[in-house]
Amino acid sequence: MTSLTRERKPVRPMGLDFRRSVQDRIRALAAERGLDGVLLLTPANVFYACGFHFSVNERPIALYIPLNGKPTLFVPLLELENAEPVEGVELKIYEEFPGIVHPVVWMVEESGARKIAIDLLDARLVGPIEAMVESLVLEDFAAPCRYIKTAEELELTRIAATYADLCLERLLLNGGDIISQGGTELDLYADSTSFALAELKKNYGEAFAGTKLGISSSVHTGPRGALPHGATGHSKPQRGHTLISGVGCSLGGYHAESGITYVVGEMSAEQRRIMEALEACDAAGVAALKPGTLCQDVNVAALAALKDAGLGDTIRHRIGHGMGVEGHEAPWLAPGDTTIVAPGMVFSNEPGVYRPGIDGYRTINTMIVHADGVEIPSRLQADHPIETRIISL
Amino acid sequence: MTSLTRERKPVRPMGLDFRRSVQDRIRALAAERGLDGVLLLTPANVFYACGFHFSVNERPIALYIPLNGKPTLFVPLLELENAEPVEGVELKIYEEFPGIVHPVVWMVEESGARKIAIDLLDARLVGPIEAMVESLVLEDFAAPCRYIKTAEELELTRIAATYADLCLERLLLNGGDIISQGGTELDLYADSTSFALAELKKNYGEAFAGTKLGISSSVHTGPRGALPHGATGHSKPQRGHTLISGVGCSLGGYHAESGITYVVGEMSAEQRRIMEALEACDAAGVAALKPGTLCQDVNVAALAALKDAGLGDTIRHRIGHGMGVEGHEAPWLAPGDTTIVAPGMVFSNEPGVYRPGIDGYRTINTMIVHADGVEIPSRLQADHPIETRIISL
Repeated sequence: MTSLTRERKPVRPMGLDFRRSVQDRIRALAAERGLDGVLLLTPANVFYACGFHFSVNERPIALYIPLNGKPTLFVPLLELENAEPVEGVELKIYEEFPGIVHPVVWMVEESGARKIAIDLLDARLVGPIEAMVESLVLEDFAAPCRYIKTAEELELTRIAATYADLCLERLLLNGGDIISQGGTELDLYADSTSFALAELKKNYGEAFAGTKLGISSSVHTGPRGALPHGATGHSKPQRGHTLISGVGCSLGGYHAESGITYVVGEMSAEQRRIMEALEACDAAGVAALKPGTLCQDVNVAALAALKDAGLGDTIRHRIGHGMGVEGHEAPWLAPGDTTIVAPGMVFSNEPGVYRPGIDGYRTINTMIVHADGVEIPSRLQADHPIETRIISL
Repeated sequence: MTSLTRERKPVRPMGLDFRRSVQDRIRALAAERGLDGVLLLTPANVFYACGFHFSVNERPIALYIPLNGKPTLFVPLLELENAEPVEGVELKIYEEFPGIVHPVVWMVEESGARKIAIDLLDARLVGPIEAMVESLVLEDFAAPCRYIKTAEELELTRIAATYADLCLERLLLNGGDIISQGGTELDLYADSTSFALAELKKNYGEAFAGTKLGISSSVHTGPRGALPHGATGHSKPQRGHTLISGVGCSLGGYHAESGITYVVGEMSAEQRRIMEALEACDAAGVAALKPGTLCQDVNVAALAALKDAGLGDTIRHRIGHGMGVEGHEAPWLAPGDTTIVAPGMVFSNEPGVYRPGIDGYRTINTMIVHADGVEIPSRLQADHPIETRIISL
């Protein structure tokens, strides 16, 4: 049995040096394109480039990075005191949303830029903003920076993966008792996530206050396992049911995932066959994830393993997605993504088999791309061979 | 003491007749503008117009309403089985995100429309879509329909308000014990929300399965009360602290709010004075909310009461926001919103006083506009005069 505690590692949230290096990478991209600066409106980009983590609502918050000089953080009055501790930025405040002038129009005006890139923009604002500037470039200059994680970002990702695992370990250990006592999916969810979250907060709550820190999870059993995005609910798992749990953990805003399919009580030969097909699919994904490969080709190579096992009709989604300051972020291991795989990228690897009316299966690993191979910081599957993935009643 | 149980009312989620009437209202607006149809991409608009409630991620989901004939619901393969029960729509499925063709471009293509309105669009898609159609109108035709709630929608709003109240009643009743035992903001939050949620689910969980049903809440005490959007945390409330709790409840996707400022142990004359100023501000908001008034003028009239009490410097936000299938939605009782107040609109009324480094105060009521006056379905403030808003230790 793996230990159900986690040692505290001496890590800190990404600091001002990192934020400055991010800003410099974005500036370099902007300079190549002859721009005056870049306005970042995506909440994850704002966090990435200056460390401000905030509650997202209709009031836009943005960071303007000029080619030279200090970035400006634009926030509504409501966030004044939350934003004041952000280091290395000048703060500019607008009163409220919607405002006489749209806050984003005001931001562009305040930036003074004549040639500006904006990462994400409501189409209705294109006209008003084009009328104000010489050149409006609709491109996300932060995204390609975010693709490649630094050593420090990867360290937070690795730790996050161990708490996603912890949630699943707890589920394996306590699940049988909870089910025997008549517990539901929601009871299993509550016990496992609250345990992992408490351990995470005990070790990192203080040092990571004000960053995104948490556990998100789902538990689906029996026929409801066939709905990849169904709600965790009041179903009581029965002997012989499969139980899918997928867990995400964020530490300092860095996201990792781990996920497993357990079987309640005993495993049938058919269940075992499908779990072996998932394992082959996971392995094909790892094998295909080489620097230089196109992201869309990794998806094709991995899903081929499910098709080869005669499970092509049960596929409901791509093999994986990027992870970092967002739980799902580009690049995507999916049709249509021609990004070239490179060292420092982080992806999920999540083969799934969904049989409507019958059951569902999914495993999730976190994969870190290196020049010489794939690192897998989530350990649940490696530590628990298929035949041991049984919640004993 | 108000009762801490709630009687089950004989209500159901909004049905197919309602969805059809929404679609017809949107069709009428589209016909006036000579369009072939309307593509709704905002998740709340999709829910409003066809009842499909789903987990939002990077994969776009949309409803196309043609001038004549059945609407089309566009979903990714992942959502196939979740979307199949939606009545009155034709389902069209795309494989994955991002896809070879952007899913939204594919949707416009599949719609066959030459003249189309889209409610919310990434600016980067304007070019590709304009190249496909004769006319692209960037306008949200569902929003003005959503402003005015029907009698059935208002009934769900009223019930939701009573569960937001319930959460605050529980906090008043149990808060003293929790604080005396060394409990934190998070403990107060967990006890009050889990109680209200359990009661809500007991009464409506089954009938409202598959709709948005839940309680969201925050608890801030002492100096942290000065941060309107701070996180509920590990602070232990002290005697004499103010304690702000704001609660939202969704029933069948309809949102209502209630919020209060309690004082722990005993109330000072200064605290009482500020709470009286909030009450005057709330009353000024109610008085100003008359059909025919501009939304922005209601904000001015309400906040004038705080300024008159010498608290102008402590204002951090507008007086209120619209509520319905989103917790925050247009129209806004805020600067820049020139929408005319009309019967059937629902707004929050939330005067707040924030004194950085010292404390914070906010109350929230839900207001329903009628031709002959404002109805306030949240009852917490009315049932608890200022002098009784004390959590006894």
